[in-house]
Amino acid sequence: MSNPTGSITQPKGFRTAGGTCGVKASGKPDLTLIVADGMCSAAAVFTTNSFKGGPVLVGMQHLPEGRGRAQAIVCQSGNANVATMGRNGQDDALRMCEAAAAVAGCRPQEVLPASTGVIGRPLPIDKIVAGIADLGSGLGIGAAFDQDAAEGILTTDLVIKHTVQRFSLTGHPHPHACTIGGIGKGSGMIAPSMATMLIFLTTDAAISPDALHAALQQANAASFNRMSVDSDTSTSDTAYVLASGAAGNPIIKSEADPNFRGFTDALTAACRDLADQVVRDGEGATRTFEVHVKGAASVEDADRIGRAVTDSPLVKCAIHGLDPNWGRLVMAAGKSGATLDPNRFVVTIEGTTVFANGLPAVTDPEALDQLATQMDTDRVHITLDAQLGDAEAIWLGCDLSRQYIAINADYTT
Amino acid sequence: MSNPTGSITQPKGFRTAGGTCGVKASGKPDLTLIVADGMCSAAAVFTTNSFKGGPVLVGMQHLPEGRGRAQAIVCQSGNANVATMGRNGQDDALRMCEAAAAVAGCRPQEVLPASTGVIGRPLPIDKIVAGIADLGSGLGIGAAFDQDAAEGILTTDLVIKHTVQRFSLTGHPHPHACTIGGIGKGSGMIAPSMATMLIFLTTDAAISPDALHAALQQANAASFNRMSVDSDTSTSDTAYVLASGAAGNPIIKSEADPNFRGFTDALTAACRDLADQVVRDGEGATRTFEVHVKGAASVEDADRIGRAVTDSPLVKCAIHGLDPNWGRLVMAAGKSGATLDPNRFVVTIEGTTVFANGLPAVTDPEALDQLATQMDTDRVHITLDAQLGDAEAIWLGCDLSRQYIAINADYTT
Repeated sequence: MSNPTGSITQPKGFRTAGGTCGVKASGKPDLTLIVADGMCSAAAVFTTNSFKGGPVLVGMQHLPEGRGRAQAIVCQSGNANVATMGRNGQDDALRMCEAAAAVAGCRPQEVLPASTGVIGRPLPIDKIVAGIADLGSGLGIGAAFDQDAAEGILTTDLVIKHTVQRFSLTGHPHPHACTIGGIGKGSGMIAPSMATMLIFLTTDAAISPDALHAALQQANAASFNRMSVDSDTSTSDTAYVLASGAAGNPIIKSEADPNFRGFTDALTAACRDLADQVVRDGEGATRTFEVHVKGAASVEDADRIGRAVTDSPLVKCAIHGLDPNWGRLVMAAGKSGATLDPNRFVVTIEGTTVFANGLPAVTDPEALDQLATQMDTDRVHITLDAQLGDAEAIWLGCDLSRQYIAINADYTT
Repeated sequence: MSNPTGSITQPKGFRTAGGTCGVKASGKPDLTLIVADGMCSAAAVFTTNSFKGGPVLVGMQHLPEGRGRAQAIVCQSGNANVATMGRNGQDDALRMCEAAAAVAGCRPQEVLPASTGVIGRPLPIDKIVAGIADLGSGLGIGAAFDQDAAEGILTTDLVIKHTVQRFSLTGHPHPHACTIGGIGKGSGMIAPSMATMLIFLTTDAAISPDALHAALQQANAASFNRMSVDSDTSTSDTAYVLASGAAGNPIIKSEADPNFRGFTDALTAACRDLADQVVRDGEGATRTFEVHVKGAASVEDADRIGRAVTDSPLVKCAIHGLDPNWGRLVMAAGKSGATLDPNRFVVTIEGTTVFANGLPAVTDPEALDQLATQMDTDRVHITLDAQLGDAEAIWLGCDLSRQYIAINADYTT
């Protein structure tokens, strides 16, 4: 669980702290604060769910159209603050922002809030405000602080999620070494009324809010939007990124900037790394699977197929049961709405082609047994080749186990 | 299991038989034949999956655009005949039609075929052809024959599904007593590579193929298209209806006919009754739930909400765990893409309003415990009122249990 290399304070210009303010009955860490030394470019993507939590609504006001300036992120993980869809939830989220602003030395509207945890209960806002002030006196830099911050945002997660990406951006007279750090949480939509995937990223690259937002949208589309734990969409999902500019590179002003692609690639790598960790920690998951959709007529079709396959309970059960069941993969792809030709579709599991030319490619029981044995791994690799075009997408999913039922049915709220 | 009132031979003009031809290794019944005394109006709806089984492709040829004339239905339930997506599967389905046509005294293209069962294995077509001829010598009318027919189409189903609807159509000098009978099978997309929902309906009402097709589409939209066992869509789903005209009513020629509505209502009742039985027999289901979506801005929105809620694994787990979890219902509705106002949305479980005005409506733990106790029933009733319009839809779902995982993960093909 320890992270010797750190995460969100690896980029220059950020301090963090995580701790306990007493919202969680368990006494586990439930509060995290990320503070930049100065004003940052900021960008966000939020849940598309119609029922948005109070902190999401406030975050959307602080970053209109998902971009703007901010200096801090504050997150408490004991209470989702989605009991109230209206004014009170937003009021409490604003009070969290005010407390964090006092620590950071910025205005409340320059703080990005998040909450996750039990829903339908009043937020003990006074405890949280006191906790934020308390954390403010203990901000620091380094792996131990990053670890505390990563722990402070967890709910039903079994492990912390964190990433560091190092990359260079061109510049004169020399290239600039840049870093992206990130932490995340999430293992299902709502385990007994626990919410959400949260992703907080920091970088020292200099980049405008508009370009940062464009980069985050691209990274998000290729990572968090291509994974499925249980097909459900939380009411609180949020990804925030702060860019301090402390790396000193010439500012990336737009998507046309020659450094935009390099920055976006690094941000995508950070997001994919976190997405991977979220899926691995999926509720009840015993193994994950990667679906590489190739040869689709369009990226939209590739995503339709990837989503249908990673969402399918029958596919997820087959992965759990080590069943090289091409029939379920074909069924799920076929129901996706993507353009498909059954006679061209090729299904490969762990390197073995199991379906091609409209026919099963492996019928020997011993060969199927051997393939089942190969599937007994942390990450099962499936390739679905539509052979209709050159669009592709890689999706991540996890298996469906009795433990998922136990987590979500037995422990009622 | 017995059905003293019968099903598909209750309408005048039909005989049936069900039996064993040796496709199932278990020795259970695996063949059903329904033969009309004369040529019938016929209509069908088929799976929308891109990967369609051979019998579906042949059925689509025999009833272009889902309507036409037919005199018999033949179904074997040991082998899905979807191993081959191309020519061979269709050839075998045609040979089944030829054998049934010889029994019925009609042309092969006037027979509607169906198959369900294991996929990826060659069809023992000679056994099936011999079995059809054998069944042909034992066709009969009455509850015992209907029972055999209903058993002959089952795979992983635990119980037979059947219905009878009696209704009157206007006519001169007197109204005409009409009957619709139906049998069905289905409990999941594919239990270890078993496929499908199949629905076979008969009626003695006189109705043109066009009007029959329109009636079936409307009945289907309000029944089979509003239920979800596991969100997966089989490659073989088929509903056939044959109308013998033996009731003697003036033929219903079009949707404008004054009797069209009465006929369609009876057909819808038959389809809903069968849909209800399919969901009750859902793989691993211990209870079902009905989601009555009201006040939606459009029927499309009502269906989006109903589908999202009945598909949601978290909602299904909550129903399993007797958890009056309005948070998951709100989450699922919110992700559906339907137009929603969080502050107007009202959630009612078993008559108790649990969420309204953007707030939980029941917070007393004792009241929640009592509601959980009320949910311990065969059929949990949930009402979701969007309060935005007057469109509604009733959806049926079933809970998600460990047994679903056992059926679909443990017993590999």
